[in-house]
Amino acid sequence: MDHKLFIYNSLSRKKENFIPINSPYVGLYVCGPTVYGEAHLGHARPAITFDVLFRYLKYLGYKVRYVRNITDVGHLENDADSGEDKVVKKARLEQLEPMELVQRYVNSYHENMLKLNILPPSIEPHASGHIIEQQQMIRKILKRGFAYESNGSVYFDVNKYNEKYQYGKLSGRNTEEMMANTRELAGQDEKRNPFDFALWKKADPVHIMHWPSEWSEGFPGWHLECSAMGTKYLGETFDIHGGGMDLLFPHHECEIAQSIAANGVDHVKTWMHNNMITINGQKMGKSLNNFINLSEFFEGNHHLLERAYCPMTIRFFILQAQYRSTVDFSNEALQAAEKGLKRLLSAGELIGKLKTSPASTFNLSEIINETFGALNDDLNTPIAIAQLFEAARIINLINDGKETITKPDLLELGKFFNSVMIDILGLISESNVENKGNLESELMNIIIDLRLQARQKKDFQTSDLIRDRLNNLNVRLNDTKEGTTWEKE
Amino acid sequence: MDHKLFIYNSLSRKKENFIPINSPYVGLYVCGPTVYGEAHLGHARPAITFDVLFRYLKYLGYKVRYVRNITDVGHLENDADSGEDKVVKKARLEQLEPMELVQRYVNSYHENMLKLNILPPSIEPHASGHIIEQQQMIRKILKRGFAYESNGSVYFDVNKYNEKYQYGKLSGRNTEEMMANTRELAGQDEKRNPFDFALWKKADPVHIMHWPSEWSEGFPGWHLECSAMGTKYLGETFDIHGGGMDLLFPHHECEIAQSIAANGVDHVKTWMHNNMITINGQKMGKSLNNFINLSEFFEGNHHLLERAYCPMTIRFFILQAQYRSTVDFSNEALQAAEKGLKRLLSAGELIGKLKTSPASTFNLSEIINETFGALNDDLNTPIAIAQLFEAARIINLINDGKETITKPDLLELGKFFNSVMIDILGLISESNVENKGNLESELMNIIIDLRLQARQKKDFQTSDLIRDRLNNLNVRLNDTKEGTTWEKE
Repeated sequence: MDHKLFIYNSLSRKKENFIPINSPYVGLYVCGPTVYGEAHLGHARPAITFDVLFRYLKYLGYKVRYVRNITDVGHLENDADSGEDKVVKKARLEQLEPMELVQRYVNSYHENMLKLNILPPSIEPHASGHIIEQQQMIRKILKRGFAYESNGSVYFDVNKYNEKYQYGKLSGRNTEEMMANTRELAGQDEKRNPFDFALWKKADPVHIMHWPSEWSEGFPGWHLECSAMGTKYLGETFDIHGGGMDLLFPHHECEIAQSIAANGVDHVKTWMHNNMITINGQKMGKSLNNFINLSEFFEGNHHLLERAYCPMTIRFFILQAQYRSTVDFSNEALQAAEKGLKRLLSAGELIGKLKTSPASTFNLSEIINETFGALNDDLNTPIAIAQLFEAARIINLINDGKETITKPDLLELGKFFNSVMIDILGLISESNVENKGNLESELMNIIIDLRLQARQKKDFQTSDLIRDRLNNLNVRLNDTKEGTTWEKE
Repeated sequence: MDHKLFIYNSLSRKKENFIPINSPYVGLYVCGPTVYGEAHLGHARPAITFDVLFRYLKYLGYKVRYVRNITDVGHLENDADSGEDKVVKKARLEQLEPMELVQRYVNSYHENMLKLNILPPSIEPHASGHIIEQQQMIRKILKRGFAYESNGSVYFDVNKYNEKYQYGKLSGRNTEEMMANTRELAGQDEKRNPFDFALWKKADPVHIMHWPSEWSEGFPGWHLECSAMGTKYLGETFDIHGGGMDLLFPHHECEIAQSIAANGVDHVKTWMHNNMITINGQKMGKSLNNFINLSEFFEGNHHLLERAYCPMTIRFFILQAQYRSTVDFSNEALQAAEKGLKRLLSAGELIGKLKTSPASTFNLSEIINETFGALNDDLNTPIAIAQLFEAARIINLINDGKETITKPDLLELGKFFNSVMIDILGLISESNVENKGNLESELMNIIIDLRLQARQKKDFQTSDLIRDRLNNLNVRLNDTKEGTTWEKE
């Protein structure tokens, strides 16, 4: 591929030129939601970040297999190895069978993702649907001596692993620190050390989701599913693993340890982590009462919101920050984003109506190069968007007759603007969210060109036929010196 | 519950008063799609039939847990125990990992169901996600002596089962007949008898979806998933099992045998089967070239269709027949249905505008009683719809001042009409579904005609140009004897 995409690798702590293991194929794994409640901003940011990555990699010509999992079992309270399963607990509260609860929130998650114009991943595996694969991985880890059974559960043996490998290399933590940060004492429970983590948990009576195994009737540890499903669908090593920064430790650290312990190889080449979201400067949290669901944003239905915000406004606002920076939500900032997006969308619509001149009075290549330069620099979307604003400013000036553009430049400008706005950033006007097609306008372009060609050949029978058939559909063509535009009546 | 719902039970071959095992809870299981291609009419009919049942049971006050599965493994060609897995074969043809193919067609199925205003089921379990549960059931059946292992596969022993129970009680077939209908000879393959069926199949090298077991690295037989998942989510016995009549034998017959063999009890109280769909009087089939996908209906993109038909027209048309009758699709019939639905929707809108009088000149209770009487009579939707037409006729007469209605009657009429139309039959105006606009498909028709014209003139430069530009938009043309169709990729 002819590009210089650099991605910040959380593991090496530097930006690296992205070269797939097996180009043009790219394997991308992203941690999806634990489906025990409505999707909120914390779900939107990774989904949008890695949607843009997915789109951009495809734009660059790669064939991407994007796996985003659904966690429906094994994620215990406080992300720890004890406490109730989050799904089971919520199911009990809502008086539903756990998989009924899972289905409800998976459906709701999908609805929200659709509204945010997030492309569905290639595969969306459920943790509960891959128990066998997880058990197979546990057996491998046990066989290689990096885990132990204790009272029907199986734990990863961090000290044993550390004799040969390095637990903590992603997060930069070491076991002494981890030890200092825990109130548990070694040997006090089933684990040999407090930082050991569960690969399999024996189900206690309250846990109604469980499967048979040689260790106990139980369920897999939370960290295991991503290692098992990533390997199953993307191979023992794959290109990119993404997720929120809150998952870096312990979740991703444990994933690395599991994969190395089971297969002897680091399974991920590039680790990417999006930063967190704050609300009015505060960390988002249920206890702070500033937890806003996506549907509450879309409906303006929360005490912190002055009014509703469209899904596209949320998407645009999130992309106005580089994914490794924090994003602070406030009504003022959202309203500013809404205006900004509107300006870009209006400029996009104006392009088709611009008149051309013998010369261009501005440097289009510079804008294009700066935009792709920004995208190639670790998906720097705010700078790419700043360049779109610059393009919008010029589009308006051309429309006002204060700048001029040549016909080839106009074609290139249209192609560039739509590629970046629609194909890469996924920003479309709200009315097109439901009605996904700009296929319609692309088909119109083909028809207009065929008509032009017929006229050049003096085949007026064909050109008239085209006009008549479009008239029947209430589509009117307007021929101008600069070309043909169309409108629905 | 204060109602007299009667449902035709395919097992007892008569209409039975529906009484749930554990009222107000109702367990409903319906066979969902094998996801290896686009959803077609054969998927729409059971989905719509059982959607109306689901809606009506909820309307009656029941708490329904509706399970509809996704078959993503084990369904071999020709619904037999040999041949390639349908999903694996299609994945090979499309050069995708099987779960990538599954995800694509699950997404497409969901989109089509949404357009048809079909409520999502409470749980939508995947066969591949329940391998352990299926293996557990096989062990139970083996333990009770109703199955045998042969060359790494496990087969259900129909003769052994018949010593104690009756294989064929749902379909009314007996093993002599089954023997006469097969070309296989007993003992010629792994099976003891040709009518024995696979519970577990050893994977041959071409089968890339497989899991470990004590019998072999393999995969479950097709019939097993529904027994295993039905039991898991609805219990060892539950109220209603539905599906298309084509599944009655062998699929449902085998399900009954498996459940009785494993648990000693009949797992389903009421079996419901919707009848088949024909196209212009002919059976629908790929070999007959009259196989119409739902998206082709919605876009008018099939040589047998004069034009596009809205999803609500399809839904209404299917409901104009009782679910146990066949339905024959034709352009004339669909256009009549479209008009009829429009009349009902207009009448519904008129209700709010009617003026009231001191007396009603017609008998509202009669219409209401007849409607619910029809629904209670094995979901006789055509008679219920006939009553809605009668109501619409009267609504128009009231509007014209030729009939009168009191205020209480008007309130009741509005409540009745909306409950039946919207809540129970799920019929809403098209603009309320997701209005995808069929301008796109009309533009495609123009382009296809221009290409045909170019080819007739031997202007291959133009016809190739058209194909290439459509390719760039991921729109593929398929030329057939009957004409050219197109699809988005």
